[in-house]
Amino acid sequence: MTSRKKLQGLVAATITPMTPDGQINLPVIRQYVDYLVNKQTVKNVFVNGTTGEGLSLSIQERKQLAEEWVCQGKDKLDHVIIHVGALSLPESQELARHAAAIGAGGIAVIAPFFFKPTKKVRVEELLEGIKERIPTFQGVKFSDTDLLDLAQCVHKNEAQQLEFLYGVDEQLLGALAVGANGAVGSTYNYLGRQTNLMLEAFAKPDLALARKYQFLTGEFLNFVIKLGFGVAQTKAVMTFVSGIPMGPPRLPLLGASEEFIAKAKAKLDSIVWPDGN
Amino acid sequence: MTSRKKLQGLVAATITPMTPDGQINLPVIRQYVDYLVNKQTVKNVFVNGTTGEGLSLSIQERKQLAEEWVCQGKDKLDHVIIHVGALSLPESQELARHAAAIGAGGIAVIAPFFFKPTKKVRVEELLEGIKERIPTFQGVKFSDTDLLDLAQCVHKNEAQQLEFLYGVDEQLLGALAVGANGAVGSTYNYLGRQTNLMLEAFAKPDLALARKYQFLTGEFLNFVIKLGFGVAQTKAVMTFVSGIPMGPPRLPLLGASEEFIAKAKAKLDSIVWPDGN
Amino acid sequence: MTSRKKLQGLVAATITPMTPDGQINLPVIRQYVDYLVNKQTVKNVFVNGTTGEGLSLSIQERKQLAEEWVCQGKDKLDHVIIHVGALSLPESQELARHAAAIGAGGIAVIAPFFFKPTKKVRVEELLEGIKERIPTFQGVKFSDTDLLDLAQCVHKNEAQQLEFLYGVDEQLLGALAVGANGAVGSTYNYLGRQTNLMLEAFAKPDLALARKYQFLTGEFLNFVIKLGFGVAQTKAVMTFVSGIPMGPPRLPLLGASEEFIAKAKAKLDSIVWPDGN
Amino acid sequence: MTSRKKLQGLVAATITPMTPDGQINLPVIRQYVDYLVNKQTVKNVFVNGTTGEGLSLSIQERKQLAEEWVCQGKDKLDHVIIHVGALSLPESQELARHAAAIGAGGIAVIAPFFFKPTKKVRVEELLEGIKERIPTFQGVKFSDTDLLDLAQCVHKNEAQQLEFLYGVDEQLLGALAVGANGAVGSTYNYLGRQTNLMLEAFAKPDLALARKYQFLTGEFLNFVIKLGFGVAQTKAVMTFVSGIPMGPPRLPLLGASEEFIAKAKAKLDSIVWPDGN
Repeated sequence: MTSRKKLQGLVAATITPMTPDGQINLPVIRQYVDYLVNKQTVKNVFVNGTTGEGLSLSIQERKQLAEEWVCQGKDKLDHVIIHVGALSLPESQELARHAAAIGAGGIAVIAPFFFKPTKKVRVEELLEGIKERIPTFQGVKFSDTDLLDLAQCVHKNEAQQLEFLYGVDEQLLGALAVGANGAVGSTYNYLGRQTNLMLEAFAKPDLALARKYQFLTGEFLNFVIKLGFGVAQTKAVMTFVSGIPMGPPRLPLLGASEEFIAKAKAKLDSIVWPDGN
Repeated sequence: MTSRKKLQGLVAATITPMTPDGQINLPVIRQYVDYLVNKQTVKNVFVNGTTGEGLSLSIQERKQLAEEWVCQGKDKLDHVIIHVGALSLPESQELARHAAAIGAGGIAVIAPFFFKPTKKVRVEELLEGIKERIPTFQGVKFSDTDLLDLAQCVHKNEAQQLEFLYGVDEQLLGALAVGANGAVGSTYNYLGRQTNLMLEAFAKPDLALARKYQFLTGEFLNFVIKLGFGVAQTKAVMTFVSGIPMGPPRLPLLGASEEFIAKAKAKLDSIVWPDGN
Repeated sequence: MTSRKKLQGLVAATITPMTPDGQINLPVIRQYVDYLVNKQTVKNVFVNGTTGEGLSLSIQERKQLAEEWVCQGKDKLDHVIIHVGALSLPESQELARHAAAIGAGGIAVIAPFFFKPTKKVRVEELLEGIKERIPTFQGVKFSDTDLLDLAQCVHKNEAQQLEFLYGVDEQLLGALAVGANGAVGSTYNYLGRQTNLMLEAFAKPDLALARKYQFLTGEFLNFVIKLGFGVAQTKAVMTFVSGIPMGPPRLPLLGASEEFIAKAKAKLDSIVWPDGN
Repeated sequence: MTSRKKLQGLVAATITPMTPDGQINLPVIRQYVDYLVNKQTVKNVFVNGTTGEGLSLSIQERKQLAEEWVCQGKDKLDHVIIHVGALSLPESQELARHAAAIGAGGIAVIAPFFFKPTKKVRVEELLEGIKERIPTFQGVKFSDTDLLDLAQCVHKNEAQQLEFLYGVDEQLLGALAVGANGAVGSTYNYLGRQTNLMLEAFAKPDLALARKYQFLTGEFLNFVIKLGFGVAQTKAVMTFVSGIPMGPPRLPLLGASEEFIAKAKAKLDSIVWPDGN
């Protein structure tokens, strides 16, 4: 389960397509892979995470999805990372063994969070000596707005070559400035192309252009956040942007309203990107 | 899965006994049932809840535990309630069907909480029309310190004969005052006898005596809360009080320290209960 | 500044009457005192607290209000307590000296809260040795729903004869059950009579009747809390119940809406109290 | 009270020097101004804010400090901004009028926060039409880690020429990336020179160098934050870095411990800055 190619750039946190009656819709994933690669220029995926409603799925469903993504992504995607976090550690371990068995590019894991520590620990502290404890440890999806912690993480682990992928899409540019290597997020499903242009601008560096891209994706996100924006709404947005039917979310989530969809679509259509697309 | 006998009084939120290597320890449950009934005068149990580390267990383990409690509790316990909440609704439904099949006295369920509502809803509002939507609905384990909400719940559902069992052990007396019918909690595993004496005093009413019992259980709880008190510590306390080996908790919980155990035991031993025991 | 008479029962957290243009309206206070005593059977007041918008007033205004309450309450009220808390300790000290100089029955003080402790401390811990440090210390307005802490406070300070007045009006009955001596709150301005009947029922003890009163005041409070209930709304309710013009609140608070007033009045009028009033 | 010169770059949130017995120490301010200008290359100050313990001071003390800063800063500082926020709006207005009268370069104000809105509002929304309502409005000290909101604020107010000064010193670089114009903070009292070098590197742009400076200031801040870092500790750090006696904080703050001071000094001394100083 080692990653030969270095993981960097954008990673789409995949949506789990569902049929109208709430079952996972595996046949759509092939089309989904092609869409990400060809239309969004995104070649890495993070499967069964929050965006994928991973914790709302049964263990069996999670395995089926992992298999399908690994299978369909073969020779097309650079990295297929399977999220194996669960409240029950035996189940998490079972999912990890399964990911290894099917040849996933890597795993990611959220710690059990029903019982949780009473005091906040900085990520930077958690990473001290991590490679000794977990020799295959590759990096972190960092999803907090505390950029001091992120900067310290990046700096203190330079020798270890850990990857820090940022998880708060709407302020990725700030994280890049302090040293993030890339990003994992739901918006890269449908704004991956534009975000890759932002990454390119930042790399030049053409900060004014990078800022312009961040402003524009932010304009959309700020708008939908005010309307109420979660995984259900992400499924709806991805459906109208990509044309691939992502279906309804699973309970406890409720589907996006028609009103939300109409407003979100109008807003997204109204944005004029710097490259004219 | 209907309860013929009315559910009232104390319900012990059961601990899940584990072997030293972290497997569930089913053979201990028979002894556990006898202890609750004979030593603690507690005849109702709530299985696989927070105290039972239910969400740290696999689905299979939860089923095995449910079966053992139903089997061992037969003719000894009044009510065996199985908690079937899970993050994944299909898994929750599977557990509910299983509880029905094995003849459990009832189920309880926590809603999925990874995706959660953005605004707080009062329990009283949730219960409007509940019997129309869920005809077998029996009542609520109310575990908040908001006694206004509890009082409204009790009052508005008198005609429906719902049960309200309070879940904050250390302030049960306050909840009884506003109308709670009983209680579900971890402390009734080892302080059930004394709490039943408090309930009796309250029923007379002998408020001064009831208050004395609440003060004394509070003195213990206040003491251990300051030391850091969670499910792992509850397992340790139950072990030294009952003599039944509850074993270590499962990760992510860490076992109670020897220092905690010594201090908690000394504190509990130092309390002189009104009945001299 | 010692209190000869023991402080117990209800204490009204007074509203600060204002003129339509936002100045403090001192002449109304005489009528306010008579109303509390004669109509609400409440003979203790807590001046310049949250309900009185104390922290929105200038130091000079707080002094004027304190003087007027002490003056008008003479021979009519049992206890006039002046709240002297402020963010600036020199100002707090100045207010305390002033309260002593005008012959107030006592002072109460909230600690500065802009800079605040990083960890929560239980009241029970704060009170250890308090009489040695503050020989004139009389008691606590306890405004948390943590009744374990309250019960421990009451129990551990029995020898010291401290008073514990509860500050969460909507669940006073729960606090009485664990040992509170009385209450300080805004609702005793307009529901003082009914709450005193609850206290009488509790003292008998007639818990069913006490619970009935708590349910009914809770029914009103639960209703207005859902509409949005704060100091501005309290001013409006007191105005329509008492007929005394309390005026608008001071910014940053905005006045209650006409819709709120109509709904709150209709709700309060619809309640049938056990004594028929 | 208009600012002719555009406000940009660094603004030191000034410390209020106190004598050992807790009185404000005005004579030290002259030396303090010279130190900021000559040693830290910082020419703007923000007086009586959080760092200055503004809310722990009396109104009279705040006026005296404002006068001294305006007087001593004349011809040396570019901008002397007086913070006039208070819980009582009449007092805030009095402070604002005073600032105008003494010729301060501008005022800043925190809204009263004892009574506060029940829902969070984004700064970007608050600024809609702000210039119509407050024609002299100049800009915002933005002290949240929500860079989406900051980016939207900057973008939507380009035509209005508002200034956005960032207030979370440890992640200023992220804020610069999304468009902040400068910064207000306590660390610019003693790390102003290094932060100005970071601003210069960012302006080139030499992001690697800018990141290096942010890492190093972050290394110090991360270290002291773990020890417990607040205004009292800032006073101690400024005292040992500048040699100017800032004195103890006022209650409710307690002075930094000798242990903190020794550790913080050793840490700061251990940092090797890119320019060798």
